[in-house]
Amino acid sequence: MAPAITLAADAPTLSSANTGFMLICSALVMLMTPGLAFFYGGMVRVKSTLNMLMMSFISLGIVTILWVLYGFSMAFGTDSGSIIGWSSDYVGFTGIGIADLWDGYTIPVYVFAVFQLMFAIITPALISGALADRVKFTAWALFITLWATIVYFPVAHWVWGAGGWAFELGVIDFAGGTAVHINAGAAALGVILVIGKRIGFKRDPMRPHSLPLVMLGAGLLWFGWFGFNAGSWLGNDDGVGALMFVNTQIATAAAMLAWLIYEKLRHGAFTTLGAASGAVAGLVAITPAGGAVDPLGAIAVGAIAGLLCAMAVGLKYKFGYDDSLDVVGVHLVGGVVGSLLIGFFASGKGQSEVQGLFYGGGLDQFWKQCAGVFAVLAYSLIVSAILAFVLDKTIGMRVSEDDEVAGIDQAEHAETAYDFSGAGGGASRTASAPVAAAASKKVDA
Amino acid sequence: MAPAITLAADAPTLSSANTGFMLICSALVMLMTPGLAFFYGGMVRVKSTLNMLMMSFISLGIVTILWVLYGFSMAFGTDSGSIIGWSSDYVGFTGIGIADLWDGYTIPVYVFAVFQLMFAIITPALISGALADRVKFTAWALFITLWATIVYFPVAHWVWGAGGWAFELGVIDFAGGTAVHINAGAAALGVILVIGKRIGFKRDPMRPHSLPLVMLGAGLLWFGWFGFNAGSWLGNDDGVGALMFVNTQIATAAAMLAWLIYEKLRHGAFTTLGAASGAVAGLVAITPAGGAVDPLGAIAVGAIAGLLCAMAVGLKYKFGYDDSLDVVGVHLVGGVVGSLLIGFFASGKGQSEVQGLFYGGGLDQFWKQCAGVFAVLAYSLIVSAILAFVLDKTIGMRVSEDDEVAGIDQAEHAETAYDFSGAGGGASRTASAPVAAAASKKVDA
Amino acid sequence: MAPAITLAADAPTLSSANTGFMLICSALVMLMTPGLAFFYGGMVRVKSTLNMLMMSFISLGIVTILWVLYGFSMAFGTDSGSIIGWSSDYVGFTGIGIADLWDGYTIPVYVFAVFQLMFAIITPALISGALADRVKFTAWALFITLWATIVYFPVAHWVWGAGGWAFELGVIDFAGGTAVHINAGAAALGVILVIGKRIGFKRDPMRPHSLPLVMLGAGLLWFGWFGFNAGSWLGNDDGVGALMFVNTQIATAAAMLAWLIYEKLRHGAFTTLGAASGAVAGLVAITPAGGAVDPLGAIAVGAIAGLLCAMAVGLKYKFGYDDSLDVVGVHLVGGVVGSLLIGFFASGKGQSEVQGLFYGGGLDQFWKQCAGVFAVLAYSLIVSAILAFVLDKTIGMRVSEDDEVAGIDQAEHAETAYDFSGAGGGASRTASAPVAAAASKKVDA
Repeated sequence: MAPAITLAADAPTLSSANTGFMLICSALVMLMTPGLAFFYGGMVRVKSTLNMLMMSFISLGIVTILWVLYGFSMAFGTDSGSIIGWSSDYVGFTGIGIADLWDGYTIPVYVFAVFQLMFAIITPALISGALADRVKFTAWALFITLWATIVYFPVAHWVWGAGGWAFELGVIDFAGGTAVHINAGAAALGVILVIGKRIGFKRDPMRPHSLPLVMLGAGLLWFGWFGFNAGSWLGNDDGVGALMFVNTQIATAAAMLAWLIYEKLRHGAFTTLGAASGAVAGLVAITPAGGAVDPLGAIAVGAIAGLLCAMAVGLKYKFGYDDSLDVVGVHLVGGVVGSLLIGFFASGKGQSEVQGLFYGGGLDQFWKQCAGVFAVLAYSLIVSAILAFVLDKTIGMRVSEDDEVAGIDQAEHAETAYDFSGAGGGASRTASAPVAAAASKKVDA
Repeated sequence: MAPAITLAADAPTLSSANTGFMLICSALVMLMTPGLAFFYGGMVRVKSTLNMLMMSFISLGIVTILWVLYGFSMAFGTDSGSIIGWSSDYVGFTGIGIADLWDGYTIPVYVFAVFQLMFAIITPALISGALADRVKFTAWALFITLWATIVYFPVAHWVWGAGGWAFELGVIDFAGGTAVHINAGAAALGVILVIGKRIGFKRDPMRPHSLPLVMLGAGLLWFGWFGFNAGSWLGNDDGVGALMFVNTQIATAAAMLAWLIYEKLRHGAFTTLGAASGAVAGLVAITPAGGAVDPLGAIAVGAIAGLLCAMAVGLKYKFGYDDSLDVVGVHLVGGVVGSLLIGFFASGKGQSEVQGLFYGGGLDQFWKQCAGVFAVLAYSLIVSAILAFVLDKTIGMRVSEDDEVAGIDQAEHAETAYDFSGAGGGASRTASAPVAAAASKKVDA
Repeated sequence: MAPAITLAADAPTLSSANTGFMLICSALVMLMTPGLAFFYGGMVRVKSTLNMLMMSFISLGIVTILWVLYGFSMAFGTDSGSIIGWSSDYVGFTGIGIADLWDGYTIPVYVFAVFQLMFAIITPALISGALADRVKFTAWALFITLWATIVYFPVAHWVWGAGGWAFELGVIDFAGGTAVHINAGAAALGVILVIGKRIGFKRDPMRPHSLPLVMLGAGLLWFGWFGFNAGSWLGNDDGVGALMFVNTQIATAAAMLAWLIYEKLRHGAFTTLGAASGAVAGLVAITPAGGAVDPLGAIAVGAIAGLLCAMAVGLKYKFGYDDSLDVVGVHLVGGVVGSLLIGFFASGKGQSEVQGLFYGGGLDQFWKQCAGVFAVLAYSLIVSAILAFVLDKTIGMRVSEDDEVAGIDQAEHAETAYDFSGAGGGASRTASAPVAAAASKKVDA
C-alpha cells in the first residue's frame, strides 16, 4: 500500500501549505510598495506628495510588465557566465505550466516568479526617496525601465540565480540586503550625484507634511516585510523561515530603540520620524542576515544598524549630496551593515552552518560578504550614474526651476494632494490657495 | 500499514493548509471594504467624506447579519429551479458543524461561508460610489438590506451555487466579474437614474479632497484583491489559484499603464487618480478571467480594460447621469470587458480546457459569457431601479437640498471629517470655519 | 513501507501549513499596534497626535526586547506556584532550537513565541488611549517596561501558561479577554485615577482631529484581529480556529449595529466614531468567547457588548475620570462582558464541551469566568495604580501645564503632525500657525 503523499525532501511535489504561504507573502511584499509610497509621501512637502506616491506606484505598473516579458528570464533563467540568465520558456511566461514546480522546491514556478516580481518592483521604487521635488515623471519612468533591465535583473541573478557568481561564491543574502537595499541605495547615490540638489537644500529642510502618513507607511512596510523576509525561504518545511520572522521583529525593535536613544542624546527629543526611520533601518539590516544569526545576534545587528544609520543621515549635509529622504543613509548604510555583520554574527544554526567571527568561525564569510557588498555597490553606483547622465543629457531628468519651486505635483500630475476647501456648498469653486486639482478624468466629456 | 493521511483527491478531508489559506484570504477580502471606503472617501469633497466611509462600513455590519440569518442559505443552499437556494441548516448557521466540510472541498463549511460573506459585503458597498453627497443614511441602510436580499443572494446563486443556471450553463466567472462587479455597476446605474444628480453636477466637478487617501484605498484594494481572486479556487492543491494570483498582478499593472497613457495623450498629464482608477479597472476585469487566460492574455485583458474604462468614465458627462465616482465606468464596464474577453482569450490551460476564439476555440464560450453578463446586468439594473423608486416614494432617498449643499457629513452623521484647529490650547473652542464635530458619544453624561 | 508523514495527532511533527498560518497571523497581530496607533491618533486633537502614535509604536520596540530577554520565560516557562513561569532556555531565546516544537503542537517554539510577543506588545499600547495629552514620554516608556514585567507577563502565565492558576481552573479565554483587554482596561483605570484629568476635561470634549485616520485604525484592527483570534488555536487541524474567525466577524458586525442604533436613539445620529467604537467593542467581547459560542451566540455577545459599551463610555463624565479615548469603556467593559457571557452562551460544540446556562449547562463555568475576570481586574488595577504612583512621585508622570496646553507633540517630540503650508515655493519658511516640525534628524550635520 503506497503512502498517500510523498515527502517533499524525497522528490518535491506541490505543497499546498507552502504555495498558500508564498502567495500570501507575495501579497505582503506587494503591499510594501504602497507602504513605501506613503512613507516617502508623508516626508515631503505637500506640493510634492503626489509625485512621490506616483514614483512608487508606477513601478508596480512598469516592472510587472518587464518581468513578464524578459525580467524573470534575465534574473532566473539558465545562467551564462555567472553574470546573467536567460530561458526562452520564461519570456512572456509562455513556457511555464501551472503544474511546473520551481526547481527543488514545493511551489509552482508561477509562485516563485510572482514573489520575486514584488522584489523587483520595490527596489527601483526605493530609489525615488532620494529624488524628491525635482525629477520629470517621464524621465523617472524611463529610468526605472532601464535600471531594472541593466541593474536589477542582473544583480538579482548574481545573488539568487543558480550559477550567479555571488550565489556560487557563498555570499549570504537571505532576502535582499545586497540585491535590494545596497542596490537601491547605491543607485540613489549615483543618480543624485549627477542630477544635483533640489532648490533650497540646506536652507529649507524637508519638513514632513504628514507624519501620520509616514507612520502609516512605516507600519505597512514593517507588516509586509515579514512576507519579504520569512517568505524568502520559500516554505516552512523547517524552522528557518520562522527564525527569519522572529529575527525581523527583534532587529527592527532594537534599531528603533537605538535610533531614538541616539537622537534623544544628540538632539534632545524622541521624534516620530526617528522611530519610523529606525524601524526601517532595522528591517533593512536584518534582511540579509536574519536567517544566519540568532535572536541575540539580531538585537546586535538591529542596534548597530539603528545607531549607524542615525549617524549616517547627517552626512548629506556635511558632504552636500541631496539624499532627500535618506535612501543612502538608511538603505545603503543599513544594507552594508547587515550584510557585513553576518561575517561576525552568523551562528551556524540557522540557514547554514556558516559561523561568523564571534561564533567560532574565522573571517572567511566576512570577506565573502565584502565581495558581494562592494561589487553590488560599485556596479549599481556607476551604472546608475551613467544612466542618469545619459537621460539628463537627452530627455532631461529635472523639471524646470519654476515647476520645482511652485510644486512638482501641479506641474507633472495636474493635481494637488489635498483640497480641504469644499466644506460648504460651492465653497470649493471660490477657494483661495492651493486648490486646483481637478483630475483630468473628471472633466472628460 | 495504513498511509498516514489520505489524498484530498480521493476523499476530501480537512486540509489545514487550505483552511489556513482561506482564512487569511477571507481577512484580505474583509480589508477590501475599508479599502474601498478610503478609495471613495478620498475622492469626494471634505464635506461628504464620512458619509462615504460609512456607506461602506455599514455594509460590514448589515450584510454580515443577513448572511448568517438567511443570505448564505439563499445563495448556497439547495437549489430550486436554478434560481435560488435554501437549506434550513444554513439558517442562523445552526445546522453547520465545525467539522463539516464544504461539499467536495477540503475546507470547513464555515470557512467557505465566511469567505463568501466578504464578497456579499463589498458588493453593495461598491454601489455607494455612485451616490456621493445625496443619499439619506437610513435609506441607504434599508437599500442594501433589500438589495442584498433580492439581488445579491440570488445572483450569487446563479453564478456560483450548485444548480444555479449560469453555473450550469458554463458561464466562467472565477471570482465575481458578473456577481460582484457587473452586479454592483448595473445597480449603481439603476439607482442614479431614479434619484438623479447631485446639486452642481457638471458645474462643480468632484475634486478629490485627499488623493493620499484615494491611493491608500487603492493600495489596500489591490492587496486584498489577491485574496479575493486567488482565494476563489478554495485551495492550492494545484496551481490554478497561483495562476489567478499572477494574472491579477499582471492585468492590474497593464491596466494602470493603459489608463495613464490614455490620459496623458488625451489630457496631458499622468494623474494619481488615473493610476488608482486604472489599477482598479484592471483588478475588476481580471476577476472573472484570471483563471482562464495566460499571462500574455492577462496583459491584453488589463490593457483593454484600462483603456475602455478610461474612455467610459467620460460618458456620464455626455449622457448626464451622475455616476459620482465612476462605479459604472469602472465596475460595470470593467466587469463586462473582463467577462466577455474570456470568450477570446481563454487558453484552455488554466481552470478548465475551454478555449477562446484566439486560442483555437470557437465563439461558444463567448455566447455563454454574453448570457451571463447581460442577464446579471439587466436583472440588477431593473430591480435596483425599482427598489430605489419604491424607497424614494416612501421614506425618501435624498437628503434635503440644504443638507446636500451644506454637507451630508454634518447633516447625517453630526461630524466633520477633520478638525485641524486644535493646535494650541483652547483654540479648538473658538475655531472658525467648518469645525463642529463633537462625536455624540463624547458628550454622553 | 513507511508512511510518508505522520499525523500530527499521533506525535506532533512540524506542520508547514500551521507554521505558515501562524507566521501570517503573527504579522496580522503586529499590524494591530500601528492600527491602534492610528485609531487613537485620529481621535485626539492635532496637537497630541504624534504622542499618541508614539505611545503605541514604542511598545513595538520595548516589549520585543523584554520578551526576548525574559518576558517569554516569565509567561511561558516552567510554572512556579501557578503564578509565574521561568525557563533559562527561553532567556535570550538562547536555548531554543529552530527545529524545537511548541509542546504538543505542530509549530516551532519560535513561532509560538513571536505570536505571543505580538499580544504582549499591543496590551500596554492599549492603555495609552486613556492618557491622551498629558504623560511624559520617558515616563510612559518606563511605565510599559515595568507594567509588562510585573503585570502582563504574570497574567499571561495565569491565563495561558501550563500550570497557571486560571488555566488550570478552567477559565476560558480563547484569545485574551482577560489577559489583554480586561488587563489593559483595568490598568488604564488605575493609572488615570492616580495621574488625574487632562486640562479642560468636560469643558473641552476630545474632538477627533481626523476621523478618516480613526477609521483606518479601526479597519486595520478588524483585519489584524482575525489573526489575533483565529491564530490563538495555533493551527487548523480542526475547525475551531475557523469557528473563531467566523464568530469574530459576526460579533463585530452585531456590536457595530448595536452601538449605532443606541446612539441614533439616544443622540440622534449615526456617527463614524460610533461605528468604529462599536466594532472594537465587538472585537473585544468575542475575543475570549469566540471559540465557545455558536454564531447566534456571537450575535448575542456582540450586540450586548456594543450596547453596554456604548452606555459605559458616558460614565467617565458622570464619575469624573478622564478615560480620554474610552479604554475603560470599551476594553474593560467589553472584556468583562465577553468573558462572563461565556457562562451563558457556551455551546459545548466549539473549543470544548463546556455548556453555558442557556445551552443546557449550569452556572459552573460562569463562576469560573468571574474568578478569572475579577482576579485580573483587581490585580491589574491595583498594581498599575501603584506603579503610576511611584513613577509620579519619582520621575513625574505628567508634562507641565504649559506643555499640555500648547501641545504635547511639540514639547515631547519636537514635531507637529501636519504641515500643509509648503504648497508653494518657500512658503513653508514663512508659514503662520502651528508649523514648526523639523524632525531633528533632518538638521543633523
